Amino acid sequence: MNLLRGLEGNGEEGRGGSVSGGGVSSVSVSGGSVSGVSENEPSPTVGIGMDCSIIPVKRREDLFIVQTTDFFYPIIDDPYKMGRIACANVVSDLYAVGVSHIDSMHMIVGVCTKMTPEESGVCTELLMKGFKDAVKEAESVLTGGDTRINPWCTIGGVATSVCKISEFIMPIHAEVGDVLVLTKALGTQMACKAITLIDDQVLWPKILHVAPEEVIRKGYEMAINSMMRLNKTAAKLMHLFNTHACTDVTGYGILGHAENLAKYQKNPVTFSIHNLPVINKMAAVAKVCGNLRLLEGRAPETSGGLLICIPKRQGEAFCKELERQEGIQAWIIGLVEKGDRTAKLIEKPRIIDVSG
Amino acid sequence: MNLLRGLEGNGEEGRGGSVSGGGVSSVSVSGGSVSGVSENEPSPTVGIGMDCSIIPVKRREDLFIVQTTDFFYPIIDDPYKMGRIACANVVSDLYAVGVSHIDSMHMIVGVCTKMTPEESGVCTELLMKGFKDAVKEAESVLTGGDTRINPWCTIGGVATSVCKISEFIMPIHAEVGDVLVLTKALGTQMACKAITLIDDQVLWPKILHVAPEEVIRKGYEMAINSMMRLNKTAAKLMHLFNTHACTDVTGYGILGHAENLAKYQKNPVTFSIHNLPVINKMAAVAKVCGNLRLLEGRAPETSGGLLICIPKRQGEAFCKELERQEGIQAWIIGLVEKGDRTAKLIEKPRIIDVSG
Repeated sequence: MNLLRGLEGNGEEGRGGSVSGGGVSSVSVSGGSVSGVSENEPSPTVGIGMDCSIIPVKRREDLFIVQTTDFFYPIIDDPYKMGRIACANVVSDLYAVGVSHIDSMHMIVGVCTKMTPEESGVCTELLMKGFKDAVKEAESVLTGGDTRINPWCTIGGVATSVCKISEFIMPIHAEVGDVLVLTKALGTQMACKAITLIDDQVLWPKILHVAPEEVIRKGYEMAINSMMRLNKTAAKLMHLFNTHACTDVTGYGILGHAENLAKYQKNPVTFSIHNLPVINKMAAVAKVCGNLRLLEGRAPETSGGLLICIPKRQGEAFCKELERQEGIQAWIIGLVEKGDRTAKLIEKPRIIDVSG
Repeated sequence: MNLLRGLEGNGEEGRGGSVSGGGVSSVSVSGGSVSGVSENEPSPTVGIGMDCSIIPVKRREDLFIVQTTDFFYPIIDDPYKMGRIACANVVSDLYAVGVSHIDSMHMIVGVCTKMTPEESGVCTELLMKGFKDAVKEAESVLTGGDTRINPWCTIGGVATSVCKISEFIMPIHAEVGDVLVLTKALGTQMACKAITLIDDQVLWPKILHVAPEEVIRKGYEMAINSMMRLNKTAAKLMHLFNTHACTDVTGYGILGHAENLAKYQKNPVTFSIHNLPVINKMAAVAKVCGNLRLLEGRAPETSGGLLICIPKRQGEAFCKELERQEGIQAWIIGLVEKGDRTAKLIEKPRIIDVSG
């Protein structure tokens, strides 16, 4: 099924990228809501551009609504898998603050007007089925949503959790000496793009020069499996391993999200990224395709991993335990140093080719 | 600003109508979630197609998340007012179950790719400003959202409230002898459409035959003011006047929503609609335009009023108090009779021309 056809004639980046950032989250302080990050101690505060909103429930001072809204245009041609990916991407915003119990989800669907009614019907049904199956995997319930026709096929949703303060982790406590852990390999969008270049007479031969077709196909499968995978286990483990701060990696790339997270730290720290775990050969493929952003840490990811600030020993234990539970690797990719709340990628980062 | 231009080439109905209904709400019973309407007593249950989802908070049995997600394409050319209307339409779903404290709102924005970047920038800013101003009027806070480019300009959002069971009214307790109250006049979409027919050489002369241009313009203003008006006061009053059931009137028209509400009643009742309050002359305009749906109770409304089942005396007092507080009329439009959970419009309903 040609799920991507409805998007023809529009640049890839514009479609998938968020115009004003991942959110327009205001900053909330217990009992009220203010703009800008509070200088005072009272938590929780969540800053503009962070992954989700955390606001106190009126008349219930011990409870907070942790919530995110996100919608996407397809980046792969399989509607069922795309539905799962969309849901994984939505819930990831809550997982990023350590919330693993999601009380309620809504679904946002745009039924593509550029397909035939038959195609559009099948496609929408599969998108919704994928989304719903991922809701189940997240142990949540789909309780509402909205569906309309739209020129571009659209899938997304809302995830909501009502939490006590002990149930989420404010992403503002990174300390000098922490390590940066990343729970999924980078290069998801590159891997999805590469497979579509098979008919490109200029780029495909260049790609074959750095990776055989079989590797491209395997990278594509890896990317899809990675994007469908929930960050749920990682979110649960965060509570066991003294996590100081966390975000998830999506539209701004690893460095963009690191910068964003750094901005909100209470301590004067800098995040220094040394290693880039990338889906096997995708760093080389990106290079020959003239796409430098992946190696600059700026390539957008879809449903990427969590980027976690955590004390060194705890970080090692976290990676080990995540691998034990999920059978999939996580990496220590950098260090938290003294600094001015920025993030940087070292000049020659080590590219880790990840295959499976 | 030609906000509607981005929508050209697409039927009016398809754009604004919800494909699979107002929601895909599942039915929730305290402590769990099941499909279909429960035959048993335990409340709350909210059925598929009802206005919002009501689900219990995990590990907090006394609390419920009341929530709705809705998005729209513009039906008028003024982006600021359209933003206000969109927000009023979103929050209306919560007001329909008597929830007047809205803890948190998210905003969903599609930035139109069919306008020039300048137009699109101005338009998006005004849409968002309108939406935000209405969030303030609703005494809520905007805490997040998502913005992407899209061929069609889009505005909508998510409204969430965490409530005790006493703070919402399950819409399932209509009783024989209740009256049906409607809090806004019908014909909003017709009034918005009529003004666009000024250059139509066939329809405009017919329209002028039943209403002078001044009346059409006034009807358009009335429709906009009505759509921007929140159902908040009505929602608060519902708690004071022993409301048995309520829904809000939007895409399915007054009769469609009455049918939907009737379906979920515990008692074997039928809703019988006798009066149709319609924006001045719009019933006649609809007729000469060949649009019979308004007189059949099937014309879609945008940000319509609440349709309330309430004991007769209480209904009269409700209307009086709403008029006292808001300076705007509400009407008793029908009766709750013994029946089979359906709704009907009597053969010759009385059309009430409403002007201001």
